[in-house]
Amino acid sequence: MDTPLRTPPRTPLSAEQIARFAAIVGERHAVVAPAEQAPYLAEPRGLYHGVTPVVLRPGSTDEVAAILRLADALGVAVVPQGGNTGLVGGQIPFAGEILISLKRLDRIREIDPASNTMTCEAGVVLQAAQEAAAAADRLFPLSLGAEGSCTIGGNLSTNAGGTAALAYGVARDLVLGLEVVLADGRVWHGLNKLKKDNTGYELKHLFLGSEGTLGIITAAVLKLFPAPRAVETAVVGLASPAAALALLGLAQERAGGRLTSFELMARICLDFALRHGIGLRDPLAATHPWYVLIELSSGAPEGLRDLIEETLTLGLERGLVDDAVMAESLDQRAAFWRLREFISDAQKHEGGSIKHDVSVPVAAVPDFIAAASAAAGAVVPGCRPVPFGHLGDGNIHFNVSQPVGADTAAFLARWDEVAAAVFAEVLARGGSISAEHGIGVMKRDVLPDVKDPVAMALMHSLKAVLDPRGILNPGKVV
Amino acid sequence: MDTPLRTPPRTPLSAEQIARFAAIVGERHAVVAPAEQAPYLAEPRGLYHGVTPVVLRPGSTDEVAAILRLADALGVAVVPQGGNTGLVGGQIPFAGEILISLKRLDRIREIDPASNTMTCEAGVVLQAAQEAAAAADRLFPLSLGAEGSCTIGGNLSTNAGGTAALAYGVARDLVLGLEVVLADGRVWHGLNKLKKDNTGYELKHLFLGSEGTLGIITAAVLKLFPAPRAVETAVVGLASPAAALALLGLAQERAGGRLTSFELMARICLDFALRHGIGLRDPLAATHPWYVLIELSSGAPEGLRDLIEETLTLGLERGLVDDAVMAESLDQRAAFWRLREFISDAQKHEGGSIKHDVSVPVAAVPDFIAAASAAAGAVVPGCRPVPFGHLGDGNIHFNVSQPVGADTAAFLARWDEVAAAVFAEVLARGGSISAEHGIGVMKRDVLPDVKDPVAMALMHSLKAVLDPRGILNPGKVV
Repeated sequence: MDTPLRTPPRTPLSAEQIARFAAIVGERHAVVAPAEQAPYLAEPRGLYHGVTPVVLRPGSTDEVAAILRLADALGVAVVPQGGNTGLVGGQIPFAGEILISLKRLDRIREIDPASNTMTCEAGVVLQAAQEAAAAADRLFPLSLGAEGSCTIGGNLSTNAGGTAALAYGVARDLVLGLEVVLADGRVWHGLNKLKKDNTGYELKHLFLGSEGTLGIITAAVLKLFPAPRAVETAVVGLASPAAALALLGLAQERAGGRLTSFELMARICLDFALRHGIGLRDPLAATHPWYVLIELSSGAPEGLRDLIEETLTLGLERGLVDDAVMAESLDQRAAFWRLREFISDAQKHEGGSIKHDVSVPVAAVPDFIAAASAAAGAVVPGCRPVPFGHLGDGNIHFNVSQPVGADTAAFLARWDEVAAAVFAEVLARGGSISAEHGIGVMKRDVLPDVKDPVAMALMHSLKAVLDPRGILNPGKVV
Repeated sequence: MDTPLRTPPRTPLSAEQIARFAAIVGERHAVVAPAEQAPYLAEPRGLYHGVTPVVLRPGSTDEVAAILRLADALGVAVVPQGGNTGLVGGQIPFAGEILISLKRLDRIREIDPASNTMTCEAGVVLQAAQEAAAAADRLFPLSLGAEGSCTIGGNLSTNAGGTAALAYGVARDLVLGLEVVLADGRVWHGLNKLKKDNTGYELKHLFLGSEGTLGIITAAVLKLFPAPRAVETAVVGLASPAAALALLGLAQERAGGRLTSFELMARICLDFALRHGIGLRDPLAATHPWYVLIELSSGAPEGLRDLIEETLTLGLERGLVDDAVMAESLDQRAAFWRLREFISDAQKHEGGSIKHDVSVPVAAVPDFIAAASAAAGAVVPGCRPVPFGHLGDGNIHFNVSQPVGADTAAFLARWDEVAAAVFAEVLARGGSISAEHGIGVMKRDVLPDVKDPVAMALMHSLKAVLDPRGILNPGKVV
């Protein structure tokens, strides 16, 4: 990929300026030594590397506000960062910006089980938030691969999706209130717990999903749900994405909000996972072209087993399901999920992979997968599409592994060509070129080609009004 | 209430200017005769009356865009209007603005059952949208008292709530994509059907709930849900809002997303409805201080009756429920709902009513009702609080009827005092002074007193950037 630099490097900060920023957080939390900075500057897959004069680790919203007041006064740009697990380079300083790590803002300020809310600071690790909710006999449903290290602030700034979005929505749907530091250091105190509030414009959605370019989220009131008392999980073998789509409709009709996951996987996903994973096994006796991992959960345990059996039986009767196996234990359930979650890792062992995190209208998924597979194959004959994802959200991780035995670098050099071919099929169906992962720098330059021009103009207007000096995560998104 | 005028009346339009606007929609749809204008200018309760040089009734998005291009060029202000059922005066032209009625934009452009989406123009009546969804064996869950005449555009511009928000969310939660005409006549084509789309800033929430002050919504992609195959409805008598809150927790835990309504009513609500309604009857043998109308629905009919019985039995065992009756027929279900829906009308027969549509965190509802009742009684001794509403959303219609035999005008003259006392109790609990109905002109002048100052400043910035000439519904919201 091309270098993500668009804005020229900033004038380097003077030692005196760095000292003024350091004084806000204390010397111990102003990191300048390269070895200590390294974990903040290398992105997990090694695609992007950043450079910064100082990593600031504020310990409070007031300190974040003081940093931005000074940055605004000096015209110094900043990049906010959570768990550094983003996949599009949004959290990396490319032009010598100050890096603000939110990880020390890690307090869970309150859990209110009767109101079903939890107030978390930005640096709370997602898994810690899940565990705190569980300790209060509640569910915080956001769940994704990086949950052991990603943070709530990063999840909200990138509007994370994950495997529970089908029933509970994406990250922005799980937020009631926000606390945000604006570009000039003002703090918007919007931490309300209200399910209904029609007093003026809905400001929170400006900051949710805008990747730190319009403000820095420091805390949020999150929605909680009743903890499920029963979970039923099955792996289904079927002939095609079209059969999976029909089964989805059936499951939604029968289970409604109790259908909490519906994950589609091509056979090649299982082949890769079984070949490279340890302790994974094929869940069904025969092989099938396509698979679905389906999960139901409910606060009322009665009848859930019947419901999943009945749904699968109806699926068999209608010719949608070829075979199915239900988890008979928590261990077996965990094994089903490990298979699903190991797909991305397994791909690393199959050489280069060109990844697309896209969405289309749910009904268009089968047609899209066929067309995108053909389009990718036309660009690189022999390449191996590895499609999987959240069928109920129309969200497919359309990854493409290199042809067997091909040169990895030569394959990856064609990333933009393959992506263009896949994106064309996305756009032809009214889809999105970034369903979950965001824009960051990775997709920034292609965005104007795929987005409605009036929408692009509105985005630039919002950026100009909320960040007039252009100091918030410059060069990202817009 | 004071006159809602804040901006001075505009310079009257010349006959030539009116003719230019009329030419866009055709003479037949440019209404100037006072008798024909009247239905657009009188608000349903008679609280507000407007004045306009011309009511324009465009028949397409292009015509709306042409009107706004001309309005922008001439600096002429406009007020968009749907079904004219709003309760805060947002749809009324107070200063001689042009009124744009969206009612002729009444096409349902598409229903896509496999994607669970429906694309409606702004003027589609809510009930027509519900019926079209039902005809496709789907549910469009938005439901409220005015559904026979309010429109989708109005519902979205005011972010309507209603009785199904507990399970399905408020209006903004039901929208996937939007088509919006901006203040200068540009059209944002954002009619996507995507459940996940992280390509830049989330623009739709700027227009949803902003009461036509930032743009005019002309069409929307709405979410559909599986049609319920079974519904169970019960009326429960209980001792207190605290008991109702505990029963809500129990019902949410047991039923999850199948709990679709949970409506709290004080006994006085039933007294009024039974006294003034025709054919209504008391659902329970004895009287109780408080009532809940609870409804479960599901796409899988099996077990739903057991679920509601079991939930109510558990409620009885825990001392939360004093008595309960389940609907044994569709007629009986309809009768339960008529009782709930007649409360507002019944109040008209009890003299003046000062109404507050407020929300607080769910757990704070019992305490709020007690405190607000005391506060209102301190302002007007003998006044009769008539609290009812959507307990699961923390949204209470805290209406206050005049003391028996008091002078209605004298009572209503104290609206602002009573409201201030009630709002103080709302704000003390981190609540909202407008949960469902919006700001319009009714609550515009109190908004700066109750809203975070940074939020107010952000709202003004957004208004300035999206409507720089101030021609979109001026004097409303901000």
